[in-house]
Amino acid sequence: MKAIHVGLLGFGTVGRGTWDVLRRNQEEILRRAGRPIEINWIATRTLDRAREATRGVAGVNLANDPALVVRHPDVDIVCELIGGVDPARQLVLDAIEHGKHVVTANKALLAQHGTEIFAAAHAKGVMVGFEAAVAGGIPIIKALREGLTANRIEWIAGIINGTSNFILSEMRSRGASFETVLREAQALGYAEADPTFDVEGIDAAHKLAIMASIAFGVPMQFEKAYAEGITKLTREDIRYAEELGYRIKLIGLARRARDGIELRVHPTLIPAKRLIANVEGAMNAVLVKGDAVGATLYYGQGAGAEPTASAVIADLVDVTRMHTADPEHRVPHLAFRADRLSDLPFLPMAEVATSYYLRMRVEDQPGVLADIARILADRGISIDAMIQKEPSEGEAQTDIILLTHLCVEGRVVEAIRAIEALPTVAGQVTRIRLEALA
Amino acid sequence: MKAIHVGLLGFGTVGRGTWDVLRRNQEEILRRAGRPIEINWIATRTLDRAREATRGVAGVNLANDPALVVRHPDVDIVCELIGGVDPARQLVLDAIEHGKHVVTANKALLAQHGTEIFAAAHAKGVMVGFEAAVAGGIPIIKALREGLTANRIEWIAGIINGTSNFILSEMRSRGASFETVLREAQALGYAEADPTFDVEGIDAAHKLAIMASIAFGVPMQFEKAYAEGITKLTREDIRYAEELGYRIKLIGLARRARDGIELRVHPTLIPAKRLIANVEGAMNAVLVKGDAVGATLYYGQGAGAEPTASAVIADLVDVTRMHTADPEHRVPHLAFRADRLSDLPFLPMAEVATSYYLRMRVEDQPGVLADIARILADRGISIDAMIQKEPSEGEAQTDIILLTHLCVEGRVVEAIRAIEALPTVAGQVTRIRLEALA
Repeated sequence: MKAIHVGLLGFGTVGRGTWDVLRRNQEEILRRAGRPIEINWIATRTLDRAREATRGVAGVNLANDPALVVRHPDVDIVCELIGGVDPARQLVLDAIEHGKHVVTANKALLAQHGTEIFAAAHAKGVMVGFEAAVAGGIPIIKALREGLTANRIEWIAGIINGTSNFILSEMRSRGASFETVLREAQALGYAEADPTFDVEGIDAAHKLAIMASIAFGVPMQFEKAYAEGITKLTREDIRYAEELGYRIKLIGLARRARDGIELRVHPTLIPAKRLIANVEGAMNAVLVKGDAVGATLYYGQGAGAEPTASAVIADLVDVTRMHTADPEHRVPHLAFRADRLSDLPFLPMAEVATSYYLRMRVEDQPGVLADIARILADRGISIDAMIQKEPSEGEAQTDIILLTHLCVEGRVVEAIRAIEALPTVAGQVTRIRLEALA
Repeated sequence: MKAIHVGLLGFGTVGRGTWDVLRRNQEEILRRAGRPIEINWIATRTLDRAREATRGVAGVNLANDPALVVRHPDVDIVCELIGGVDPARQLVLDAIEHGKHVVTANKALLAQHGTEIFAAAHAKGVMVGFEAAVAGGIPIIKALREGLTANRIEWIAGIINGTSNFILSEMRSRGASFETVLREAQALGYAEADPTFDVEGIDAAHKLAIMASIAFGVPMQFEKAYAEGITKLTREDIRYAEELGYRIKLIGLARRARDGIELRVHPTLIPAKRLIANVEGAMNAVLVKGDAVGATLYYGQGAGAEPTASAVIADLVDVTRMHTADPEHRVPHLAFRADRLSDLPFLPMAEVATSYYLRMRVEDQPGVLADIARILADRGISIDAMIQKEPSEGEAQTDIILLTHLCVEGRVVEAIRAIEALPTVAGQVTRIRLEALA
């Protein structure tokens, strides 16, 4: 029984985790896969670390140069765990060119260059596995690509950035500010020194673009995604949302609307009683609505060495199990066959319809609310709920919080501009989108 | 592009749902599967119903006799949706004998005769899909069999009987009794006229036996499962559990212990803050703990025409995609290869270790608690939490509620017998198991 040989590119957190889990559970994995899966090449810049980890294990070769591994004749699957676009893109394309199957955890690479990579793999008849690119160990790619094939997917809503969810959970439970919690998260290693990718929604948008592509059978188009982060959320908004029966989460949402696909990441009010609203800390969850199955939810750790390794190895086992299938009959990379992708357009945000939480600081005097209500009514925006606070002792201003019914974002942007122009309204209107997810 | 031909056995709720979804989403499914999937035979006793549904669709043949369909040369996949063991078992074996792939939603059949059926399929080189047999549309079989292959599974805990969960949810939210809610559920069609299978935990035990087999790579052995239902649960127990920070759910639990596998279905206290404790109504959820991935949860509708059809069709697409693979390399029926199943024993309940909720009615007099505490201590059972209620006005008796730390069930049974023998304890001790699920 010949082993499947894996060449590992990168020996950081996930690379090391993959090595550890594959070794620890090798007997179990062999019983499942039917063939031993063995890492026989590791390319890394930290050779000492790799040497230390692999000591005493026969048949493992270390290299400084990943280019050597992607073309080595004794490698069957190249496992790309370097991250980033360069040089990962070229290495993956070279591996495919040399007839290797590829397993990758690289969401940025796929979200931006997936179309090119899958086309190359399709032409060569090799597989590309990327379960680890979205939501860590949760087998969400498999669920979308294989588990829900009977369905016309209506929408996907995901908490797919653990750092942001950790920050929001802490802000809510402790009433702390974004800045305070971010600093703590950085100290704990939950957030990077430069947290932009996480807290500005870019990482979530990468993952969302990948899921949307599989759900709707469209080419990956990260550049069409709208991303808005959590940096401007205040404790007050979180508290007001709670008073109204909602939680604020950073949600990645892909929806099939009448005229195209919505692809957007932003802070979102969700009814507190929804299961996904109760996903706390650094955990991830993805809610998928299919026309036949209804809503299904997938929950687990979205990052970390071993959860991510779990997804990487699941792909290695899949490739091992399926490599004898006629390439035309294997599971398509994007769930739909490459020659049958759809050209459904992505919608600009101005055409997206959702509900809104609007918070504004107003003078405590008669007629203010009437003016605001008139501005909304003129644009066909109807109000679902409202809180008007008593002004604090000695203050002349107070907060009005409104929830709207469903309306088109373009109209809301206009309305906000008009409200901000009122002499009785101070400063800017805070706007957070709201989704019922039902 | 030749269509894959499906012979449907049974045209009840799920059969009809499968027909409807396959028709409605045929274009989407074709884009995914690469070949049209067409039902060309339907065997049913309700021919009128089938004639009505299939009117105007070319190429569909109706039959009274399922034996004709399982051996028809123009059927590629037999889809068994009759339910029950007879004649389903023989029909499935005949289909396999005639070289057909099989897709089935029949949990009772697989839990009891899975070993025989998989052996026959293995010998013939055909596939048996059974995603629909567990938790309706939730792709939990795929997650266990393919998504989590890197992991040594430690345990699975599932809310896998919607009827029971609906009853428990209503009992808790409205403070109603089991009998009241059951009657309502029957009127609404959520519970059968004879609800034994659902409320006594038998249906859940079927599904649990199937999941355990896949998780641990052991032959299906439904007869080793312990099943205890919800018929004896009282409003008081649900309320006391809540006071202590827990919810009571009917949980199917399969755990790899040191000396074997625990396989048990029973009412269970779960910490209220766990996501799975907040699964309400007729919904299903399965929590899986793997050594690498940690805890992952899968949630959705566990029954109904279209959710179940979603799982049936996912299997049809899988078979269509994989039928060109070398049979030796396809996904094994039980996740592990047939020649590599393990003979790990299932543990008798007396050897299972868990925590307990104990409620007893006692005389309100000195020394009672001391006697009880002594009985527990003598058997090495330590107390984690306790509530002692004030007796109601004019009553001489009161309730004591205890939560124990982890202990072996055999010891607890002994202790309960000794407590019930105390002259100061009235009637029987109520015992409900408790799982932290962390």
